[in-house]
Amino acid sequence: AGDAAVGKSKAAVCASCHGADGMALMPAYPNLAGQNEEYLVSALQAYRSKERQGGNAALMHAMAANLSDDDIANLAAYYASLK
Amino acid sequence: AGDAAVGKSKAAVCASCHGADGMALMPAYPNLAGQNEEYLVSALQAYRSKERQGGNAALMHAMAANLSDDDIANLAAYYASLK
Repeated sequence: AGDAAVGKSKAAVCASCHGADGMALMPAYPNLAGQNEEYLVSALQAYRSKERQGGNAALMHAMAANLSDDDIANLAAYYASLK
Repeated sequence: AGDAAVGKSKAAVCASCHGADGMALMPAYPNLAGQNEEYLVSALQAYRSKERQGGNAALMHAMAANLSDDDIANLAAYYASLK
């Protein structure tokens, strides 16, 4: 599993859409707080690989493009840890 | 917006993975309870159109294949209404 504390430091840019508390600032974006860590990892990987298309996927392609596997694990751990 | 009550009746099959209360039974699947309605609509549409690939997307392609726009709106309203 990832490191939530490291994930938190990585999540600053995510907060602009997904909220500082993991509750999305726009209804078109998902809340991430308390989401399942394993699901978040697979979703971020699918955005990074661009397998996930449709909706606002293109925006997330840009966000996920430069994330390492560790970044993805840590971000997933961080958002899963938020209630 | 969709009709959460109608969505609830439609969600019986979804509950087998996403839980009767919208909390997924498996860590690889997302919790849906309290998720943003507009996001859920776009995700279901992306599964129905198969634009969303990667992870467990193939399973959701089968689930979403026969959903109408009303079904999608009602299911999204239902899961968004769960806390």
